[in-house]
Amino acid sequence: MAAAPSSFRPEEARSPPALELPTPPLSKFKVALCQLSVTADKARNISHARAAIEAAAAKGAKLVLLPEIWNGPYSNDSFPEYAEDIEAGGDAAPSFSMMSEVARSLQITLVGGSIAERSNNNLYNTCCIFGSDGKLKGKHRKIHLFDIDIPGKITFKESKTLTAGQNPTVVDTDVGRIGIGICYDIRFQELAMLYAARGAHLLCYPGAFNMTTGPLHWELLQRARAADNQVLVGPFGEVIATTEHEETTIIAEIDYSLIEQRRQFLPLQYQRRGDLYQLVDVQRLGSQ
Amino acid sequence: MAAAPSSFRPEEARSPPALELPTPPLSKFKVALCQLSVTADKARNISHARAAIEAAAAKGAKLVLLPEIWNGPYSNDSFPEYAEDIEAGGDAAPSFSMMSEVARSLQITLVGGSIAERSNNNLYNTCCIFGSDGKLKGKHRKIHLFDIDIPGKITFKESKTLTAGQNPTVVDTDVGRIGIGICYDIRFQELAMLYAARGAHLLCYPGAFNMTTGPLHWELLQRARAADNQVLVGPFGEVIATTEHEETTIIAEIDYSLIEQRRQFLPLQYQRRGDLYQLVDVQRLGSQ
Repeated sequence: MAAAPSSFRPEEARSPPALELPTPPLSKFKVALCQLSVTADKARNISHARAAIEAAAAKGAKLVLLPEIWNGPYSNDSFPEYAEDIEAGGDAAPSFSMMSEVARSLQITLVGGSIAERSNNNLYNTCCIFGSDGKLKGKHRKIHLFDIDIPGKITFKESKTLTAGQNPTVVDTDVGRIGIGICYDIRFQELAMLYAARGAHLLCYPGAFNMTTGPLHWELLQRARAADNQVLVGPFGEVIATTEHEETTIIAEIDYSLIEQRRQFLPLQYQRRGDLYQLVDVQRLGSQ
Repeated sequence: MAAAPSSFRPEEARSPPALELPTPPLSKFKVALCQLSVTADKARNISHARAAIEAAAAKGAKLVLLPEIWNGPYSNDSFPEYAEDIEAGGDAAPSFSMMSEVARSLQITLVGGSIAERSNNNLYNTCCIFGSDGKLKGKHRKIHLFDIDIPGKITFKESKTLTAGQNPTVVDTDVGRIGIGICYDIRFQELAMLYAARGAHLLCYPGAFNMTTGPLHWELLQRARAADNQVLVGPFGEVIATTEHEETTIIAEIDYSLIEQRRQFLPLQYQRRGDLYQLVDVQRLGSQ
Protein backbone atom coordinates (compact mmCIF):
# COMPACT_ATOMS: atom_id res chain seq x y z
CA MET A 1 0.00 0.00 0.00
CA ALA A 2 1.65 3.21 -1.15
CA ALA A 3 1.26 6.23 1.05
CA ALA A 4 -0.74 9.17 -0.26
CA PRO A 5 1.17 11.74 -2.35
CA SER A 6 3.46 13.77 -0.12
CA SER A 7 1.72 16.94 -1.28
CA PHE A 8 -1.12 15.83 1.00
CA ARG A 9 1.22 16.25 3.98
CA PRO A 10 -0.59 13.74 6.20
CA GLU A 11 2.03 14.28 8.91
CA GLU A 12 0.87 17.88 9.17
CA ALA A 13 -2.70 16.86 9.88
CA ARG A 14 -1.55 16.86 13.49
CA SER A 15 0.51 19.68 14.93
CA PRO A 16 2.98 18.75 16.26
CA PRO A 17 3.09 15.63 14.04
CA ALA A 18 1.52 12.53 15.57
CA LEU A 19 3.88 10.35 17.59
CA GLU A 20 4.54 6.81 16.48
CA LEU A 21 2.46 4.29 18.37
CA PRO A 22 4.86 3.04 21.06
CA THR A 23 5.42 -0.68 21.50
CA PRO A 24 3.16 -1.61 24.42
CA PRO A 25 4.71 -3.46 27.39
CA LEU A 26 2.39 -6.35 26.64
CA SER A 27 0.05 -6.98 23.78
CA LYS A 28 -2.75 -9.01 25.32
CA PHE A 29 -4.38 -8.69 28.71
CA LYS A 30 -7.73 -8.68 30.44
CA VAL A 31 -9.52 -5.46 31.30
CA ALA A 32 -12.32 -5.22 33.85
CA LEU A 33 -14.92 -2.45 33.88
CA CYS A 34 -16.69 -2.25 37.23
CA GLN A 35 -20.16 -0.72 37.15
CA LEU A 36 -21.08 0.05 40.75
CA SER A 37 -24.18 1.01 42.66
CA VAL A 38 -23.47 4.03 44.81
CA THR A 39 -25.09 4.92 48.13
CA ALA A 40 -24.85 7.90 50.47
CA ASP A 41 -22.61 5.83 52.78
CA LYS A 42 -19.07 6.67 51.74
CA ALA A 43 -17.37 3.94 53.80
CA ARG A 44 -19.69 1.35 52.23
CA ASN A 45 -18.97 2.69 48.73
CA ILE A 46 -15.25 2.37 49.36
CA SER A 47 -15.40 -1.19 50.65
CA HIS A 48 -17.87 -2.08 47.90
CA ALA A 49 -15.55 -0.75 45.18
CA ARG A 50 -12.64 -2.54 46.77
CA ALA A 51 -14.50 -5.84 46.66
CA ALA A 52 -15.33 -5.33 42.97
CA ILE A 53 -11.68 -4.58 42.16
CA GLU A 54 -10.54 -7.67 44.06
CA ALA A 55 -13.06 -9.86 42.28
CA ALA A 56 -11.93 -8.50 38.91
CA ALA A 57 -8.27 -9.11 39.70
CA ALA A 58 -9.11 -12.63 40.85
CA LYS A 59 -10.51 -13.22 37.35
CA GLY A 60 -7.20 -12.20 35.84
CA ALA A 61 -7.79 -8.53 34.99
CA LYS A 62 -4.55 -6.56 34.69
CA LEU A 63 -6.37 -3.28 34.16
CA VAL A 64 -9.40 -2.38 36.27
CA LEU A 65 -11.65 0.65 35.75
CA LEU A 66 -14.12 2.25 38.13
CA PRO A 67 -16.98 4.56 37.13
CA GLU A 68 -17.30 8.33 37.51
CA ILE A 69 -18.03 9.64 41.05
CA TRP A 70 -18.21 6.25 42.69
CA ASN A 71 -17.68 7.22 46.33
CA GLY A 72 -20.90 9.19 46.79
CA PRO A 73 -23.98 10.53 45.03
CA TYR A 74 -23.52 12.41 41.76
CA SER A 75 -24.91 15.83 42.75
CA ASN A 76 -23.67 19.35 43.30
CA ASP A 77 -24.77 19.06 46.93
CA SER A 78 -22.71 15.94 47.46
CA PHE A 79 -19.49 16.83 45.65
CA PRO A 80 -18.17 19.07 48.49
CA GLU A 81 -19.19 16.56 51.15
CA TYR A 82 -17.50 13.54 49.55
CA ALA A 83 -14.49 15.39 48.14
CA GLU A 84 -10.98 14.33 49.16
CA ASP A 85 -7.65 16.10 49.36
CA ILE A 86 -5.67 13.83 47.09
CA GLU A 87 -2.40 15.67 47.59
CA ALA A 88 -2.67 15.26 51.36
CA GLY A 89 -3.56 11.56 50.97
CA GLY A 90 -3.90 9.21 53.97
CA ASP A 91 -6.99 9.76 56.12
CA ALA A 92 -7.81 12.96 54.21
CA ALA A 93 -8.39 10.80 51.15
CA PRO A 94 -9.78 7.38 52.07
CA SER A 95 -11.03 6.61 48.55
CA PHE A 96 -7.68 7.57 47.09
CA SER A 97 -5.79 5.58 49.72
CA MET A 98 -7.89 2.46 49.15
CA MET A 99 -7.23 2.62 45.40
CA SER A 100 -3.51 3.04 45.86
CA GLU A 101 -3.32 0.22 48.37
CA VAL A 102 -5.41 -2.24 46.35
CA ALA A 103 -3.53 -1.52 43.10
CA ARG A 104 -0.26 -2.29 44.89
CA SER A 105 -1.45 -5.38 46.72
CA LEU A 106 -3.11 -6.86 43.61
CA GLN A 107 -0.38 -5.59 41.26
CA ILE A 108 -2.86 -4.17 38.79
CA THR A 109 -3.17 -0.93 36.86
CA LEU A 110 -6.18 0.93 38.19
CA VAL A 111 -8.05 3.72 36.40
CA GLY A 112 -9.94 4.91 39.42
CA GLY A 113 -13.08 6.27 37.80
CA SER A 114 -13.44 9.63 39.45
CA ILE A 115 -14.05 11.23 42.80
CA ALA A 116 -14.53 14.86 43.75
CA GLU A 117 -11.14 16.36 44.60
CA ARG A 118 -10.56 19.37 46.82
CA SER A 119 -7.48 21.44 46.02
CA ASN A 120 -6.77 25.10 46.87
CA ASN A 121 -10.45 25.74 47.62
CA ASN A 122 -11.47 24.36 44.24
CA LEU A 123 -13.37 21.15 43.57
CA TYR A 124 -12.52 18.96 40.59
CA ASN A 125 -14.00 15.80 39.09
CA THR A 126 -10.80 13.80 39.14
CA CYS A 127 -9.64 10.45 37.83
CA CYS A 128 -6.56 8.96 39.51
CA ILE A 129 -4.53 6.37 37.65
CA PHE A 130 -2.41 3.98 39.71
CA GLY A 131 0.43 1.77 38.61
CA SER A 132 0.81 -1.81 39.78
CA ASP A 133 3.16 -0.49 42.49
CA GLY A 134 0.29 1.54 43.91
CA LYS A 135 1.88 4.84 42.93
CA LEU A 136 -0.19 7.62 41.37
CA LYS A 137 0.85 7.65 37.72
CA GLY A 138 -1.42 10.47 36.64
CA LYS A 139 -4.47 12.48 37.54
CA HIS A 140 -7.10 13.72 35.10
CA ARG A 141 -9.38 16.53 36.12
CA LYS A 142 -12.49 16.58 33.91
CA ILE A 143 -11.80 19.13 31.18
CA HIS A 144 -15.32 19.62 29.82
CA LEU A 145 -17.81 20.13 32.62
CA PHE A 146 -21.27 18.67 32.22
CA ASP A 147 -23.43 21.77 31.83
CA ILE A 148 -26.53 20.70 29.99
CA ASP A 149 -30.16 21.70 29.89
CA ILE A 150 -32.66 19.53 28.06
CA PRO A 151 -36.00 20.82 29.38
CA GLY A 152 -38.17 18.16 30.93
CA LYS A 153 -35.40 15.59 30.53
CA ILE A 154 -32.18 16.52 32.23
CA THR A 155 -30.66 19.69 33.58
CA PHE A 156 -27.30 19.66 35.31
CA LYS A 157 -24.61 22.21 35.86
CA GLU A 158 -21.36 20.85 37.19
CA SER A 159 -19.81 24.29 36.90
CA LYS A 160 -21.94 25.40 39.87
CA THR A 161 -19.52 23.58 42.16
CA LEU A 162 -16.71 22.16 40.05
CA THR A 163 -13.72 23.73 38.33
CA ALA A 164 -12.57 22.33 34.98
CA GLY A 165 -9.17 20.72 34.63
CA GLN A 166 -6.49 22.31 32.49
CA ASN A 167 -4.66 19.29 31.09
CA PRO A 168 -5.27 16.44 28.74
CA THR A 169 -3.91 13.30 30.43
CA VAL A 170 -1.92 10.50 28.89
CA VAL A 171 -0.32 7.93 31.19
CA ASP A 172 2.22 5.23 30.43
CA THR A 173 1.32 2.09 32.37
CA ASP A 174 2.19 -1.60 32.49
CA VAL A 175 -0.70 -2.17 30.09
CA GLY A 176 0.13 0.53 27.57
CA ARG A 177 -0.32 4.22 27.02
CA ILE A 178 -3.75 5.35 28.18
CA GLY A 179 -5.57 8.59 27.38
CA ILE A 180 -8.12 9.61 30.00
CA GLY A 181 -11.39 11.49 29.70
CA ILE A 182 -14.30 11.65 32.10
CA CYS A 183 -17.85 11.19 30.82
CA TYR A 184 -18.81 14.44 29.02
CA ASP A 185 -15.19 14.75 27.82
CA ILE A 186 -16.09 12.01 25.31
CA ARG A 187 -18.31 14.41 23.36
CA PHE A 188 -15.28 16.39 22.27
CA GLN A 189 -13.75 14.45 19.41
CA GLU A 190 -10.70 16.74 19.53
CA LEU A 191 -9.56 15.22 22.83
CA ALA A 192 -9.57 11.71 21.41
CA MET A 193 -7.77 12.91 18.28
CA LEU A 194 -5.14 14.58 20.42
CA TYR A 195 -4.66 11.43 22.54
CA ALA A 196 -4.29 9.27 19.45
CA ALA A 197 -1.67 11.74 18.18
CA ARG A 198 0.15 11.40 21.50
CA GLY A 199 0.45 7.68 20.87
CA ALA A 200 -2.27 6.33 23.17
CA HIS A 201 -3.17 2.66 22.72
CA LEU A 202 -6.31 2.86 24.73
CA LEU A 203 -8.74 5.58 25.72
CA CYS A 204 -10.62 5.26 28.99
CA TYR A 205 -13.69 7.36 29.71
CA PRO A 206 -15.12 6.58 33.14
CA GLY A 207 -18.70 7.76 33.00
CA ALA A 208 -21.93 8.16 34.85
CA PHE A 209 -23.94 8.93 31.74
CA ASN A 210 -27.54 9.86 32.37
CA MET A 211 -30.52 7.88 31.14
CA THR A 212 -31.57 10.54 28.60
CA THR A 213 -28.47 10.95 26.47
CA GLY A 214 -26.86 7.72 27.69
CA PRO A 215 -29.00 5.31 25.68
CA LEU A 216 -28.75 7.66 22.67
CA HIS A 217 -25.06 8.38 22.65
CA TRP A 218 -22.82 6.54 25.10
CA GLU A 219 -22.13 3.54 22.92
CA LEU A 220 -22.17 5.62 19.71
CA LEU A 221 -19.54 8.01 21.01
CA GLN A 222 -17.26 5.25 22.21
CA ARG A 223 -17.51 3.41 18.90
CA ALA A 224 -16.93 6.62 16.97
CA ARG A 225 -13.84 7.58 18.97
CA ALA A 226 -12.47 4.09 18.39
CA ALA A 227 -13.23 3.88 14.69
CA ASP A 228 -12.09 7.42 13.90
CA ASN A 229 -8.85 7.31 15.85
CA GLN A 230 -8.16 3.61 15.59
CA VAL A 231 -7.55 3.20 19.29
CA LEU A 232 -9.45 1.81 22.27
CA VAL A 233 -11.41 -1.33 22.93
CA GLY A 234 -12.34 -2.28 19.37
CA PRO A 235 -10.24 -0.08 17.05
CA PHE A 236 -12.70 -0.98 14.31
CA GLY A 237 -15.59 0.43 16.33
CA GLU A 238 -16.72 -3.00 17.49
CA VAL A 239 -18.34 -3.31 20.87
CA ILE A 240 -16.35 -6.09 22.52
CA ALA A 241 -18.52 -6.28 25.59
CA THR A 242 -21.38 -4.29 26.99
CA THR A 243 -24.04 -4.38 29.66
CA GLU A 244 -27.18 -2.59 30.79
CA HIS A 245 -27.43 -0.19 33.69
CA GLU A 246 -27.38 -2.71 36.52
CA GLU A 247 -24.38 -3.20 38.76
CA THR A 248 -21.92 -5.58 37.19
CA THR A 249 -18.32 -6.09 36.19
CA ILE A 250 -17.44 -6.73 32.57
CA ILE A 251 -14.24 -8.55 31.73
CA ALA A 252 -12.89 -8.51 28.20
CA GLU A 253 -9.63 -9.25 26.48
CA ILE A 254 -7.59 -6.45 24.98
CA ASP A 255 -5.42 -7.37 22.02
CA TYR A 256 -3.22 -4.50 20.89
CA SER A 257 -2.16 -6.37 17.77
CA LEU A 258 -5.59 -5.38 16.43
CA ILE A 259 -4.58 -1.72 16.46
CA GLU A 260 -1.63 -2.32 14.17
CA GLN A 261 -3.72 -4.61 12.00
CA ARG A 262 -6.55 -2.14 11.63
CA ARG A 263 -4.16 0.72 10.90
CA GLN A 264 -2.48 -1.40 8.27
CA PHE A 265 -5.81 -2.31 6.66
CA LEU A 266 -7.18 1.21 6.82
CA PRO A 267 -4.13 3.49 6.73
CA LEU A 268 -5.96 6.64 7.79
CA GLN A 269 -2.79 8.13 9.25
CA TYR A 270 -1.20 8.33 5.80
CA GLN A 271 -4.36 9.55 4.16
CA ARG A 272 -5.14 12.59 6.26
CA ARG A 273 -4.90 15.91 4.46
CA GLY A 274 -2.61 18.21 6.43
CA ASP A 275 -2.73 20.51 3.43
CA LEU A 276 -6.43 21.04 4.16
CA TYR A 277 -6.88 20.68 7.92
CA GLN A 278 -4.79 20.43 11.01
CA LEU A 279 -5.53 19.55 14.61
CA VAL A 280 -3.30 21.54 16.93
CA ASP A 281 -2.36 20.15 20.35
CA VAL A 282 -1.79 23.54 21.97
CA GLN A 283 0.16 22.33 25.01
CA ARG A 284 2.37 19.90 23.15
CA LEU A 285 3.12 22.54 20.53
CA GLY A 286 3.94 25.09 23.25
CA SER A 287 6.32 22.77 25.06
CA GLN A 288 8.48 22.09 22.02
CA MET B 1 -27.03 28.46 30.42
CA ALA B 2 -23.83 30.41 31.01
CA ALA B 3 -21.04 29.98 28.53
CA ALA B 4 -17.83 28.36 29.71
CA PRO B 5 -15.22 30.67 31.24
CA SER B 6 -13.67 32.82 28.55
CA SER B 7 -10.24 31.46 29.46
CA PHE B 8 -11.38 28.31 27.66
CA ARG B 9 -11.50 30.30 24.40
CA PRO B 10 -14.10 28.07 22.71
CA GLU B 11 -14.08 30.38 19.67
CA GLU B 12 -10.44 29.45 19.12
CA ALA B 13 -11.24 25.74 18.93
CA ARG B 14 -11.72 26.44 15.25
CA SER B 15 -9.26 28.50 13.24
CA PRO B 16 -10.56 30.75 11.75
CA PRO B 17 -13.39 30.90 14.31
CA ALA B 18 -16.50 28.94 13.36
CA LEU B 19 -19.09 30.86 11.36
CA GLU B 20 -22.52 31.41 12.81
CA LEU B 21 -25.06 28.94 11.45
CA PRO B 22 -26.79 30.90 8.67
CA THR B 23 -30.57 31.14 8.61
CA PRO B 24 -31.63 28.50 6.08
CA PRO B 25 -33.92 29.54 3.21
CA LEU B 26 -36.49 27.12 4.54
CA SER B 27 -36.58 25.11 7.71
CA LYS B 28 -38.55 22.01 6.74
CA PHE B 29 -38.46 20.00 3.56
CA LYS B 30 -38.37 16.48 2.24
CA VAL B 31 -35.12 14.83 1.19
CA ALA B 32 -34.93 11.76 -1.04
CA LEU B 33 -31.97 9.38 -1.12
CA CYS B 34 -31.98 7.24 -4.24
CA GLN B 35 -30.18 3.94 -3.96
CA LEU B 36 -29.71 2.63 -7.49
CA SER B 37 -28.71 -0.61 -9.12
CA VAL B 38 -26.02 0.03 -11.69
CA THR B 39 -25.36 -1.91 -14.89
CA ALA B 40 -22.68 -1.75 -17.58
CA ASP B 41 -25.17 0.05 -19.86
CA LYS B 42 -24.54 3.75 -19.34
CA ALA B 43 -27.59 4.98 -21.23
CA ARG B 44 -29.80 2.68 -19.14
CA ASN B 45 -28.14 3.94 -15.92
CA ILE B 46 -28.85 7.52 -16.91
CA SER B 47 -32.51 6.95 -17.75
CA HIS B 48 -32.88 4.78 -14.65
CA ALA B 49 -31.44 7.51 -12.40
CA ARG B 50 -33.65 10.08 -14.08
CA ALA B 51 -36.74 8.00 -13.36
CA ALA B 52 -35.76 7.67 -9.71
CA ILE B 53 -35.25 11.45 -9.41
CA GLU B 54 -38.60 12.12 -11.05
CA ALA B 55 -40.36 9.67 -8.74
CA ALA B 56 -38.74 11.30 -5.70
CA ALA B 57 -39.74 14.79 -6.82
CA ALA B 58 -43.28 13.56 -7.43
CA LYS B 59 -43.37 12.57 -3.75
CA GLY B 60 -42.47 16.10 -2.76
CA ALA B 61 -38.70 15.87 -2.28
CA LYS B 62 -37.00 19.26 -2.59
CA LEU B 63 -33.52 17.76 -2.24
CA VAL B 64 -32.61 14.56 -4.08
CA LEU B 65 -29.38 12.60 -3.68
CA LEU B 66 -27.84 10.00 -5.94
CA PRO B 67 -25.20 7.44 -4.90
CA GLU B 68 -21.49 7.35 -5.70
CA ILE B 69 -20.52 6.29 -9.26
CA TRP B 70 -24.05 5.67 -10.45
CA ASN B 71 -23.51 5.82 -14.24
CA GLY B 72 -21.33 2.72 -14.55
CA PRO B 73 -19.57 -0.03 -12.62
CA TYR B 74 -17.39 0.95 -9.68
CA SER B 75 -14.00 -0.30 -10.89
CA ASN B 76 -10.68 1.09 -12.00
CA ASP B 77 -11.26 -0.45 -15.41
CA SER B 78 -14.58 1.31 -15.79
CA PHE B 79 -13.75 4.79 -14.49
CA PRO B 80 -11.97 5.90 -17.71
CA GLU B 81 -14.66 4.39 -19.90
CA TYR B 82 -17.62 6.04 -18.14
CA ALA B 83 -15.89 9.32 -17.33
CA GLU B 84 -17.33 12.60 -18.59
CA ASP B 85 -15.87 15.99 -19.38
CA ILE B 86 -18.04 18.09 -17.10
CA GLU B 87 -16.55 21.38 -18.19
CA ALA B 88 -17.35 20.61 -21.83
CA GLY B 89 -20.89 19.52 -20.91
CA GLY B 90 -23.50 18.66 -23.56
CA ASP B 91 -22.95 15.39 -25.39
CA ALA B 92 -19.51 15.01 -23.80
CA ALA B 93 -21.26 14.68 -20.45
CA PRO B 94 -24.64 12.95 -20.81
CA SER B 95 -24.92 12.09 -17.10
CA PHE B 96 -24.07 15.65 -16.14
CA SER B 97 -26.48 17.06 -18.72
CA MET B 98 -29.35 14.84 -17.57
CA MET B 99 -28.84 15.96 -13.96
CA SER B 100 -28.78 19.62 -14.87
CA GLU B 101 -31.85 19.29 -17.03
CA VAL B 102 -33.90 17.29 -14.52
CA ALA B 103 -33.00 19.61 -11.62
CA ARG B 104 -34.21 22.58 -13.65
CA SER B 105 -37.38 20.95 -14.94
CA LEU B 106 -38.37 19.58 -11.53
CA GLN B 107 -37.09 22.65 -9.65
CA ILE B 108 -35.20 20.60 -7.11
CA THR B 109 -31.77 20.76 -5.54
CA LEU B 110 -29.82 17.75 -6.73
CA VAL B 111 -26.71 16.32 -5.09
CA GLY B 112 -25.69 14.17 -8.00
CA GLY B 113 -23.91 11.35 -6.21
CA SER B 114 -20.73 11.02 -8.19
CA ILE B 115 -19.46 10.13 -11.62
CA ALA B 116 -15.93 9.77 -12.95
CA GLU B 117 -14.80 13.13 -14.32
CA ARG B 118 -12.11 13.65 -16.94
CA SER B 119 -10.24 16.93 -16.74
CA ASN B 120 -6.77 17.79 -18.09
CA ASN B 121 -5.90 14.12 -18.48
CA ASN B 122 -6.81 13.41 -14.87
CA LEU B 123 -9.76 11.39 -13.62
CA TYR B 124 -11.68 12.45 -10.52
CA ASN B 125 -14.52 10.94 -8.50
CA THR B 126 -16.78 13.98 -8.68
CA CYS B 127 -20.05 15.05 -7.12
CA CYS B 128 -21.97 17.79 -8.96
CA ILE B 129 -24.50 19.84 -7.02
CA PHE B 130 -27.27 21.51 -9.03
CA GLY B 131 -29.58 24.30 -7.99
CA SER B 132 -33.29 24.28 -8.77
CA ASP B 133 -32.46 26.38 -11.86
CA GLY B 134 -30.36 23.51 -13.20
CA LYS B 135 -27.12 25.42 -12.78
CA LEU B 136 -24.02 23.77 -11.35
CA LYS B 137 -23.68 25.22 -7.84
CA GLY B 138 -20.57 23.33 -6.87
CA LYS B 139 -18.44 20.33 -7.66
CA HIS B 140 -16.73 18.12 -5.10
CA ARG B 141 -13.86 15.93 -6.18
CA LYS B 142 -13.32 13.13 -3.65
CA ILE B 143 -10.55 14.32 -1.35
CA HIS B 144 -9.62 11.04 0.34
CA LEU B 145 -9.21 8.28 -2.20
CA PHE B 146 -10.33 4.79 -1.24
CA ASP B 147 -7.06 2.91 -0.96
CA ILE B 148 -7.66 -0.01 1.32
CA ASP B 149 -6.34 -3.51 1.71
CA ILE B 150 -8.08 -5.93 4.04
CA PRO B 151 -6.66 -9.30 2.97
CA GLY B 152 -9.30 -11.83 2.01
CA LYS B 153 -12.03 -9.21 2.39
CA ILE B 154 -11.56 -6.17 0.24
CA THR B 155 -8.69 -4.61 -1.65
CA PHE B 156 -9.19 -1.51 -3.73
CA LYS B 157 -6.95 1.28 -4.87
CA GLU B 158 -8.72 4.25 -6.40
CA SER B 159 -5.41 6.06 -6.69
CA LYS B 160 -4.45 3.65 -9.49
CA THR B 161 -6.69 5.63 -11.80
CA LEU B 162 -8.10 8.59 -9.88
CA THR B 163 -6.61 11.87 -8.72
CA ALA B 164 -7.73 13.32 -5.38
CA GLY B 165 -9.57 16.62 -5.22
CA GLN B 166 -7.99 19.64 -3.60
CA ASN B 167 -10.97 21.41 -2.09
CA PRO B 168 -13.50 20.89 0.64
CA THR B 169 -16.90 21.81 -0.81
CA VAL B 170 -19.69 23.77 0.83
CA VAL B 171 -22.61 24.89 -1.32
CA ASP B 172 -25.43 27.31 -0.53
CA THR B 173 -28.66 25.96 -1.97
CA ASP B 174 -32.39 26.55 -1.75
CA VAL B 175 -32.47 23.94 1.01
CA GLY B 176 -29.58 25.26 3.08
CA ARG B 177 -25.83 25.12 3.25
CA ILE B 178 -24.56 21.66 2.36
CA GLY B 179 -21.10 20.20 2.96
CA ILE B 180 -20.16 17.44 0.53
CA GLY B 181 -18.00 14.37 0.99
CA ILE B 182 -17.84 11.21 -1.09
CA CYS B 183 -17.88 7.82 0.62
CA TYR B 184 -14.38 7.33 2.12
CA ASP B 185 -14.23 11.08 2.87
CA ILE B 186 -16.59 10.30 5.76
CA ARG B 187 -13.83 8.50 7.66
CA PHE B 188 -12.01 11.77 8.13
CA GLN B 189 -13.73 13.49 11.02
CA GLU B 190 -11.74 16.65 10.28
CA LEU B 191 -13.70 17.29 7.08
CA ALA B 192 -17.02 17.20 8.92
CA MET B 193 -15.62 19.45 11.65
CA LEU B 194 -14.45 21.90 9.05
CA TYR B 195 -17.83 21.90 7.28
CA ALA B 196 -19.66 22.48 10.55
CA ALA B 197 -17.31 25.41 11.21
CA ARG B 198 -18.16 26.78 7.78
CA GLY B 199 -21.80 26.88 8.81
CA ALA B 200 -23.16 23.82 7.01
CA HIS B 201 -26.66 22.72 8.00
CA LEU B 202 -26.42 19.38 6.34
CA LEU B 203 -23.64 17.05 5.30
CA CYS B 204 -24.17 14.77 2.33
CA TYR B 205 -21.90 11.81 1.70
CA PRO B 206 -22.91 9.92 -1.42
CA GLY B 207 -21.45 6.47 -1.01
CA ALA B 208 -20.97 3.08 -2.53
CA PHE B 209 -19.71 1.52 0.67
CA ASN B 210 -18.55 -2.05 0.34
CA MET B 211 -20.13 -5.00 2.13
CA THR B 212 -17.13 -5.53 4.43
CA THR B 213 -16.74 -2.20 6.16
CA GLY B 214 -20.20 -0.96 5.16
CA PRO B 215 -22.20 -3.00 7.65
CA LEU B 216 -19.56 -2.23 10.31
CA HIS B 217 -19.15 1.48 9.83
CA TRP B 218 -21.42 3.28 7.40
CA GLU B 219 -24.21 4.00 9.83
CA LEU B 220 -21.81 4.48 12.73
CA LEU B 221 -19.79 7.11 10.88
CA GLN B 222 -22.86 9.04 9.77
CA ARG B 223 -24.29 9.06 13.28
CA ALA B 224 -20.95 10.08 14.73
CA ARG B 225 -20.47 12.98 12.33
CA ALA B 226 -23.98 14.15 13.15
CA ALA B 227 -23.72 13.83 16.91
CA ASP B 228 -20.22 15.31 17.13
CA ASN B 229 -20.81 18.26 14.86
CA GLN B 230 -24.51 18.72 15.49
CA VAL B 231 -25.38 18.84 11.81
CA LEU B 232 -26.92 16.48 9.26
CA VAL B 233 -29.92 14.24 9.18
CA GLY B 234 -30.40 13.69 12.89
CA PRO B 235 -28.15 16.21 14.68
CA PHE B 236 -28.54 14.06 17.79
CA GLY B 237 -27.14 11.06 15.97
CA GLU B 238 -30.57 9.55 15.35
CA VAL B 239 -31.13 7.53 12.24
CA ILE B 240 -34.24 9.10 10.71
CA ALA B 241 -34.58 6.57 7.94
CA THR B 242 -32.52 3.69 6.65
CA THR B 243 -32.65 0.72 4.32
CA GLU B 244 -30.74 -2.40 3.36
CA HIS B 245 -28.64 -2.79 0.22
CA GLU B 246 -31.44 -3.29 -2.27
CA GLU B 247 -32.41 -0.62 -4.75
CA THR B 248 -34.83 1.84 -3.21
CA THR B 249 -35.52 5.50 -2.56
CA ILE B 250 -35.85 6.77 0.97
CA ILE B 251 -37.82 9.91 1.63
CA ALA B 252 -37.51 11.66 4.97
CA GLU B 253 -38.32 15.04 6.40
CA ILE B 254 -35.55 17.43 7.34
CA ASP B 255 -36.32 19.87 10.13
CA TYR B 256 -33.54 22.39 10.64
CA SER B 257 -35.12 23.68 13.82
CA LEU B 258 -33.73 20.54 15.42
CA ILE B 259 -30.17 21.78 14.85
CA GLU B 260 -30.76 24.94 16.86
CA GLN B 261 -32.62 22.98 19.50
CA ARG B 262 -29.90 20.38 19.89
CA ARG B 263 -27.20 23.04 20.00
CA GLN B 264 -29.14 24.87 22.66
CA PHE B 265 -29.59 21.73 24.73
CA LEU B 266 -26.00 20.59 24.31
CA PRO B 267 -23.99 23.77 23.82
CA LEU B 268 -20.84 22.06 22.59
CA GLN B 269 -19.79 25.13 20.61
CA TYR B 270 -19.34 27.13 23.82
CA GLN B 271 -17.69 24.29 25.64
CA ARG B 272 -14.84 23.46 23.30
CA ARG B 273 -11.37 24.17 24.65
CA GLY B 274 -9.51 26.34 22.18
CA ASP B 275 -6.88 26.76 24.88
CA LEU B 276 -6.13 23.04 24.49
CA TYR B 277 -6.87 22.11 20.90
CA GLN B 278 -7.64 23.81 17.62
CA LEU B 279 -8.84 22.57 14.26
CA VAL B 280 -7.32 24.64 11.48
CA ASP B 281 -9.16 25.06 8.17
CA VAL B 282 -6.04 25.66 6.10
CA GLN B 283 -7.74 27.14 3.02
CA ARG B 284 -10.12 29.38 4.92
CA LEU B 285 -7.27 30.63 7.09
CA GLY B 286 -5.10 31.29 4.04
CA SER B 287 -7.81 33.26 2.25
CA GLN B 288 -8.36 35.70 5.08
